[in-house]
Amino acid sequence: MSLVSVGTVAFDSIETPFGKADMVVGGAATYISLAASYFTKEQGIVSVVGDDFPKEELKHLQKRGINLDGLEIKKGEKSFYWSGRYHDNMNQRDTLVTDLNVLADFKPKVPTDLRDAKYLMLGNLTPEIQYKVIKQMTKRPKLIAMDTMNFWMDIAMKSLKKTIKQVDILMINDEEARQLSGEYSLVKAAAKIHKMGPKFLIIKKGEHGALLFAENKVFFAPALPLAEVFDPTGAGDTFAGGFMGYIAKTESTSFENMKRAVIYGSAMASFCVEEFSIGRLKNLKATDIKKRVKRFEKLGAFTL
Amino acid sequence: MSLVSVGTVAFDSIETPFGKADMVVGGAATYISLAASYFTKEQGIVSVVGDDFPKEELKHLQKRGINLDGLEIKKGEKSFYWSGRYHDNMNQRDTLVTDLNVLADFKPKVPTDLRDAKYLMLGNLTPEIQYKVIKQMTKRPKLIAMDTMNFWMDIAMKSLKKTIKQVDILMINDEEARQLSGEYSLVKAAAKIHKMGPKFLIIKKGEHGALLFAENKVFFAPALPLAEVFDPTGAGDTFAGGFMGYIAKTESTSFENMKRAVIYGSAMASFCVEEFSIGRLKNLKATDIKKRVKRFEKLGAFTL
Repeated sequence: MSLVSVGTVAFDSIETPFGKADMVVGGAATYISLAASYFTKEQGIVSVVGDDFPKEELKHLQKRGINLDGLEIKKGEKSFYWSGRYHDNMNQRDTLVTDLNVLADFKPKVPTDLRDAKYLMLGNLTPEIQYKVIKQMTKRPKLIAMDTMNFWMDIAMKSLKKTIKQVDILMINDEEARQLSGEYSLVKAAAKIHKMGPKFLIIKKGEHGALLFAENKVFFAPALPLAEVFDPTGAGDTFAGGFMGYIAKTESTSFENMKRAVIYGSAMASFCVEEFSIGRLKNLKATDIKKRVKRFEKLGAFTL
Repeated sequence: MSLVSVGTVAFDSIETPFGKADMVVGGAATYISLAASYFTKEQGIVSVVGDDFPKEELKHLQKRGINLDGLEIKKGEKSFYWSGRYHDNMNQRDTLVTDLNVLADFKPKVPTDLRDAKYLMLGNLTPEIQYKVIKQMTKRPKLIAMDTMNFWMDIAMKSLKKTIKQVDILMINDEEARQLSGEYSLVKAAAKIHKMGPKFLIIKKGEHGALLFAENKVFFAPALPLAEVFDPTGAGDTFAGGFMGYIAKTESTSFENMKRAVIYGSAMASFCVEEFSIGRLKNLKATDIKKRVKRFEKLGAFTL
């Protein structure tokens, strides 16, 4: 197996200034694996749903080449549910409901055929679960990337730092990087986070782009200015999926290749926000992605 | 004359998470003209101060080739004074004090030798004053750029739109672009603002970089991730000064050249924030600027 991702497969209800979507498909592992499916057919997810989760949605994931052996379906239980409302500026949101349901006692089980994956993506979950997944791998993956959020910094910093120590790439937003490091300057924050373990830090800034930090190196990828932004939900996960999918496809973790992976991740995220839920990620063509990546190339190009 | 800038020459008191500066030199025209002075020696400012403004600071501006014929010194009056405190994230600030003083009844007088300037930069002031300056030019400048702020959108939208109609480039931040256009999407905001008059829109996003919109074209310039950010005051004006100085030096308003001007403006702004007040802008070397511009080139470079 090339890529394994752990994260939620869930229902979301979302309100943005542009509309509402009720009980639509969401979850980090859903977005990650769908985005990655455009780059690799060698991937699986580790997650849990209730038997309320629509079978046709699971079939769609499988049709896109996603191995669901690691997706536990709990009979008589409900899937994880999140509901949120975005502010007018879309950079902030309020959580209205979080129903853990099946997630309350989720014990991830990485199936045997996924345990030798070369690349591991840890979607946002309790750091303890992320840690357990790493420990179930039979061989240390070539690259482990991890998403997390301020919530875990607030309530589980010790456990979070234990997991962070194990990974190669940490993917967080700018506020989280500042909270985790205690540094305002992102350059200083990156230096401190490198010392916590990860050789690479990706700072996701939504509509403001993304930064990739390695020791003594930095790369800035813009976000595409879009005419239509309906719903930012899942954009970060889609970025991560595009990034890891590209790495899995190209099998290189050089800085130059990671820069390309950031661009492909950003391109996938730019599709994600154009519709509610996974709508836009269901039927992209290779040419759509190619065209969009070219737009990134043009967007920041200048000659001195 | 190549470049004329109108704006405040003033005192600031500033608090950031990293320190305090009391009654230091500030003002839009100060930052604009100092930044531009690294690109052209053919420039003047139109402004007003009280006789409390230090003579040695004015001499320094003159030493940098800035024509002060248009700087009125009002005897027995005090210079404009602004005091503000930045939030922890430095992207927001509270104004603590605004003492208009000499600015209360400022009637800009563009001296004869500045009235034929090829390039005109309107720093943030009442739209009415900006309009009057345009009307005093004997020949329509090749390029008029204008900065403004949400405050004028709140209290003087009609007058603001009258001035905007006269200019080629509007420079505002993302929130202001959204407020002015009533559009969330910056792509749609740019389209609406083009219809108000300006052929070009520059959206300044501080630590998130800058966007340059022309009809059917867009360019994204990153901001340099900096280890030391002491004080963002004047960064937007410094950007504008670097931008217009570069245009004045190169005498081209092609989109390709404007992209370079955005990079030079961003480079100048990246110096500005490294010290309080105009400290860092006083004695830069050409090689400092060259090196920094090169860092921008590297920061966003990738190959597909």
